[in-house]
This record gives sequence, C-alpha cells and structure tokens, in this order.
Amino acid sequence: MSPVYLDNNATTRVDPAVVGAMLPFFTEQFGNPSSMHAYGASVAEAVRKARQQLQALIGAGFEDEIIFTSGGTESDSTAILSALEVMPGRKEIVTSAVEHPAVLKLCAHLEKTRGVKVHIIPVDHHGRLDLDAYRTALTPQVAIVSIMWANNETGTIFPVVELADLAREVGALFHTDAVQAVGRLPVELKSTAIDMLSLSAHKLHGPKGIGALYVRRGVRFSSMIKGGHQERDRRAGTENTPGIVGLGMAAELALKFMDETKRIKWLRDRLENGIIQRIPNTSINGDPQERLPNTANIGFEGIEGDAIPIVLSRLGIACSAGSACASGSLEPSHVLIAMNAACGAVRFSLSRDNGEDDVDRVLEVLPAITEKLRAVPSAGLCGRGAEQLHSGPGPSGTIADAHSGAVRSSST
Amino acid sequence: MSPVYLDNNATTRVDPAVVGAMLPFFTEQFGNPSSMHAYGASVAEAVRKARQQLQALIGAGFEDEIIFTSGGTESDSTAILSALEVMPGRKEIVTSAVEHPAVLKLCAHLEKTRGVKVHIIPVDHHGRLDLDAYRTALTPQVAIVSIMWANNETGTIFPVVELADLAREVGALFHTDAVQAVGRLPVELKSTAIDMLSLSAHKLHGPKGIGALYVRRGVRFSSMIKGGHQERDRRAGTENTPGIVGLGMAAELALKFMDETKRIKWLRDRLENGIIQRIPNTSINGDPQERLPNTANIGFEGIEGDAIPIVLSRLGIACSAGSACASGSLEPSHVLIAMNAACGAVRFSLSRDNGEDDVDRVLEVLPAITEKLRAVPSAGLCGRGAEQLHSGPGPSGTIADAHSGAVRSSST
Ligand SMILES: Cc1ncc(COP(=O)(O)O)c(C=O)c1O
Ligand SMILES: Cc1ncc(COP(=O)(O)O)c(C=O)c1O
Repeated sequence: MSPVYLDNNATTRVDPAVVGAMLPFFTEQFGNPSSMHAYGASVAEAVRKARQQLQALIGAGFEDEIIFTSGGTESDSTAILSALEVMPGRKEIVTSAVEHPAVLKLCAHLEKTRGVKVHIIPVDHHGRLDLDAYRTALTPQVAIVSIMWANNETGTIFPVVELADLAREVGALFHTDAVQAVGRLPVELKSTAIDMLSLSAHKLHGPKGIGALYVRRGVRFSSMIKGGHQERDRRAGTENTPGIVGLGMAAELALKFMDETKRIKWLRDRLENGIIQRIPNTSINGDPQERLPNTANIGFEGIEGDAIPIVLSRLGIACSAGSACASGSLEPSHVLIAMNAACGAVRFSLSRDNGEDDVDRVLEVLPAITEKLRAVPSAGLCGRGAEQLHSGPGPSGTIADAHSGAVRSSST
Repeated sequence: MSPVYLDNNATTRVDPAVVGAMLPFFTEQFGNPSSMHAYGASVAEAVRKARQQLQALIGAGFEDEIIFTSGGTESDSTAILSALEVMPGRKEIVTSAVEHPAVLKLCAHLEKTRGVKVHIIPVDHHGRLDLDAYRTALTPQVAIVSIMWANNETGTIFPVVELADLAREVGALFHTDAVQAVGRLPVELKSTAIDMLSLSAHKLHGPKGIGALYVRRGVRFSSMIKGGHQERDRRAGTENTPGIVGLGMAAELALKFMDETKRIKWLRDRLENGIIQRIPNTSINGDPQERLPNTANIGFEGIEGDAIPIVLSRLGIACSAGSACASGSLEPSHVLIAMNAACGAVRFSLSRDNGEDDVDRVLEVLPAITEKLRAVPSAGLCGRGAEQLHSGPGPSGTIADAHSGAVRSSST
C-alpha cells in the first residue's frame, strides 16, 4: 500500500521541477552572488528572477519589496522587531490568540524583556477574530499589528485586508503571517494596506530553510540579522541561492496550479463529509465558510488528539494531532484552547499531490479505528471534563447528537 | 579554457557527494522532523546523524552542543545576543578590528541602540591581535569576547585557544567566528575554553543557507529566533533538513580530506611565490606564519584592488578584491585598513577542488596584466598616497625593493 501524506500544513513535498531548478546552483553556478566575477553575476541574475517569480505570486508592486529569509519564523521575527525599532515612540503590539508560536513566543519575550505591551485578541469558537476587541486595541500606541492570513491548525482565514485598513487608520504597521496562505489562496498585495507579509517555501512545495518577508516600499525597516550588504542591507548572510531559486520556481508553479485549489477543496470536502457521515460524534473545527481549501481539522469526541494519528501512521497515513488539553502525550494546542474546542482533534491537510485514493483510504480505515479507540478508554480517551465541551457548529450537530450514546456530547 | 575558481573564501562548490546526500530529503524523506508520523521520524534520525558528523569535525564533547542555523551570520548574531541576554549584569563586548561584518555591524548596532560598550582590539600590520590591548579590555564587565578563528581576507589565524582561557579568567563567554577555519584547520573544541563557535556550510563544500552554532554544555543560552521547539528550543523554525544533511556530509568529507590541506598549502605557496618572484612590487598580507593554508592575499603596489580581479574574470579566473582605501569602485576593506596595508589587494583562496593547473594559469597571465595596468594609470592605479604605504613583511621585501622603480615602494 503506498503511503498517504495528509500533513501538508506541516510541510510539503518539494516539487521535482523545483529540485531540478535548484540543482545547478550547488555544483555549477555555485558562486556567491555578491562576487564581482562571472561566477557571481550569473547567480545574481537567477536570484533576481526568483524575486520576480515570487513578486508575481503575491502581487507585490515591486520586486525589491521581497527580502529572502531562512523561513517563516525568521520573517515573523524580523517584521515585528523591525516595527518596534523604526517606531520607537510606540510600545504596543496587537496580535491574535491563535498566531503561530513564531509570533506569540516572540511577543511574550518582548513583553517580559522590553516592556512591550501585547494585546492578544481572542477568537470565537469558530476561530474568528473578535473584531470589537481588535478595534479597541488599535490606538496610536501600537507599533505593529501581526495577524495571520490563515491559521495553520484549523485553516480559518482572517480578513487581513480589512484589518490592515483599520491598522493604517491609527498609523500602525500591519504584518501578516501568510505562511499557510501563500500558494493556497490568491494574494494581491499591491491593492491592500498590508505592510509586511511572511511566507515559507516548504509550505508550497519549495525547499525548507528558505522564506521571504515582503516589505512594502516606503515602509521603514530595520534588519534583524546584521552583517554584510546582502538583500540591500535588509538581511545579512550569504544568499541561499539554491533555496532562493527553488522558492522562485515553487512560486511560479503555485501560480500555475492555482486552479488545483478547486480539486483540493473537493477532496477536502469529501474527506470531511465522509468522516462526519461515517463516524459518530465528530465535528469540524474552524470557520465553516472562511477556511483554507486544503485543511480539515476534525474533533473526534472522546478520543485524544494523538491516538488517531499514531494508529494511522502505522498504516502509512500521515496527519497531525491537536489537543485542547494537556491530558495526552501531546502539548496542548493554544489554537484549540483559544477556540474553546473539545480536547482532541486531528488535522488532515492536503495539497496538489493528493488524489481521491488518499481520501478514500482514510475513509476506509478510520471508522474501525475510532470505534476501537473509543471501546478501550485507556488507549486514547480524552480526559477533559464534559463541562468543558460545548455543542459545535457545522454539519456535525445532528449526526453527532444521534450517536452520542457511549461517549460525551459532540465537540467543536 | 576551463574556468579557474580561486575564490573559495567567498564560497565553495558543493561536493557532489553532498548533493547526493541531500537529494532524498527534497522529494522522498521530505517530512517535518517534528512530526510524530513515520515521515517525520526518519528525517529526525538523519538530522541526528548530521549532528554527529559535525560533532566529529569540530571535536565537540556532545552532539547536543550543536545548533543548526541558517549560516555564519545568524550564528554570530545569536552568540552575541545570547551572551548579553544571559549576563544582564555585563554590558561590554570585546572583539577585534578585523572581524567579519556579521560581528562588527551587530556590535555597532548594539552600541548605538542598547548602550553596550564595545572594545575593538587593534591588529598589527600582519593582522595579529594586540594582546596587551586584549588583556586590558578583559574585565568582569565583559559579557562576551568574539574573536574570529581565522580572518576571511588574509587568512591570519588568531590564538583563540589562549584567548578563550584569558576570557574565562574574568568570567566572560568566549565566542569564535570559525567560518573560515572549520574544515581547513583541525578543530578540537572539547579540550578548550571556547564557549561558542560559528560555522557555515558553504565554506566547506556544503550548501548555502545552513550553518551551525556550537554552544558548550552548561553555557546559558537564549535563542535569537523564537517560536517552535526545534533544536531543543534554541532555534525556532522548521529544520532545513536537506541543508542539515548536506552540512553533515560536508563535515564528514572535510574530516576525511583534512590531509588535502598539505597539498592545498603547497599550491598556495606555489602561487604566492610565483607571483612575488615574477611580478615586481608585490607582497603578502597577513601573518607570515599563522595563516590559513588556502589563502593568499597579495598586495599589488599601485594597482587598485578590483582592477586585477576584473581582468582575470574576463579570462575565466575568479578571485576577490580588497581595498584599504575608497578610491576605487570597491568599498574599502576594514581589515586592510586595520592592518594599515597599502591600497589594493587581491585574494586568491583555494580548496581541494583546485589543482596545479589553476595556479599555473594565474602565474601565466598575471605578469602581463599587472604590467598593463601599471602602464595605464587611469585604468586601475591606486590613488592612495605614498605616505600611507609602509614596507612589508615576508619574502617580498627584497624582491619588491629590487623592482621599485616606476612605482612606489613595496606595500604590505
Ligand atoms: C569570517 C566570516 N564570518 C562570517 C561569515 C558569514 O557567513 P554566512 O555568509 O554564511 O552567513 C563569513 C562569510 O561570508 C566569513 O568569512
Ligand atoms: C502559520 C505559520 N507561521 C509560521 C510558521 C513557521 O515557518 P517556518 O517553520 O518555515 O519557520 C509556520 C509553520 O511552521 C506556520 O504554519
């Protein structure tokens, strides 16, 4: 049985065409793009092409708005630290409760060590931002707003274009962590008020260890990694030229395959509906409407988050676990906690590499697995109290209710 | 005529065996090593192997002393920022005048924005550290000393083992930027007082965009890039697994080929002696004894630093320029200025990829080139005043003196 990879929000397979584009830059065009000799010049040209390929994918106005970094995490840090540095009079950050640790951990650190005030905007049980709280937090003290474009665990999409407009009204910079969005949703930055955007190649069939930060022209900027003059003094360090070329090609392919999104969404819906219909007491986490087309985050009532992925892994099926409590071997998910979701959840995330077979395989094996896990309480039953569960949204309501015999009520 | 690459201090060609080791990690073992499923596990094992390969190369006591980063620049920043954070009572840094910008630019920034005091220890005209000034600067106010193992422009080697002992006496952490040393000199960290060491894969036939920071066990550490739990919470961001595997293989090969150093040194000496003997008014920059075996930094009196590399590049020969003045199109080199070297210099840097042919090619074309450049003053004559030149060390003295007719006296 060939393996089934449904963990594309964790990382994606590098497209063979991307590897092909990268290869010459290891052993042939291996020069340092900063060098004045011919070895350098041809590589500098390739870097420029990659910048344009990425510019096209995110609809940036100018290619020099793109700074290559080592990945999404570095981009996030760079954006936030830069804003604090270029706006020394403003000492507040606005972010959401469901950001990636790359944003939240840095914010917590800045709060502790630099006396920065961080407003963490809550989300509702669908993972949607509390817009009133957001508006209230926006004052002229805010240096930067950092709100993700789409959440990595649930796929919930945030209205970043509107949020950016509001931030601009108080003179705050607006940064969005679009690591999960770029390549999966159409992005056209030039018509928005978004000042900075983070992305990471390995989430869009590019290589690991390379990413980018978009910084709108005219936005003041201070580099995080200081040193050489690379990236116009905005990111020091010898350029990762194979990585950059790979990201460029991945961007070009993402644009070319943007239509695949429809097929991926169809597969995702087939998976979700199949699970909801076949397995009692299951429900979908995340915004029922505004959600990444590739992401299914499914609560299996009464089963701890890691139990299903562990069993599936033995069958050659890769997916991810999420937990809103600390009772399992899993670290609790701050995202599911912020949504007040029930204890365990499983994330299936698709990509253009997936086909109907992959989905059908899961639908074939999952009913028996969940039945078994639920029959042996100690083997993976969620320890979270029923009082913490609440009834959920979406299509699961009635189905789940009909089955809620042995286990607790349906979870979100 | 096949191209001649003599710019290995800028970057090296990736060894085909390194590329071979990396390849499966793009399209087959592409999992996220943090994932719990099988895709993650096999990759996590490969990362562990790479850590051990690197541990062997630098003689670290424990594999967990190695933190993978995006390169030498990030490692340098991380080391210095960490020291300031874990020793909040100490607000001084000791470094040298000839460090890489990755260290000096960060130090300048910290001085400006965080009130850190930076002691920049001068060097003599051979590029050797002023030990008296070093000892004087070492006080219990010093959080960290950052002195490179070997200089990238001249190859001058610093006595880091002894310098680290002295730093330890005042309780300061000792960091060394060994980006140019690792893979070229034997390194055995466990028997030293060196607390942190930076290295970069692309200087030792590994890929660009990956490096490491060694942090001795027991040394307190604070990460620069915050976020996920990767690298035991010391460097957030999805691991660059192909890069890590590539660095591991590059380390293994560097150890295996350490003996090549003798051949490389022989080639380098042949190049240096050939130039000194054939071309009047040339001299060697850097420590005559303690110098990297692969690096030749040669002053061509009266010729601006970039003139020769530009002409050589047209002939398919790659090397680098250095300048101690701002009169050319080149940015002045702080290293050559700190050494009070004469205006222009050319750096030839070799690797195990080079052979006798490469050296002979340079020796064949260079005399005519320098003669031409010197005959047409406007085409590349150094604008620096004779009063700034001083007589130099090494084997060049007599030879240069014998030829110093049309042009100025021999430069260092
Ligand atoms: C001595 C030294 N330190 C640091 C660096 C920076 O390394 P990287 O470009 O890999 O960030 C270099 C090379 O560029 C170097 O020669
Ligand atoms: C939303 C989000 N932001 C940031 C990151 C960090 O990206 P990287 O691991 O490439 O640093 C990730 C993925 O890990 C992510 O999903």
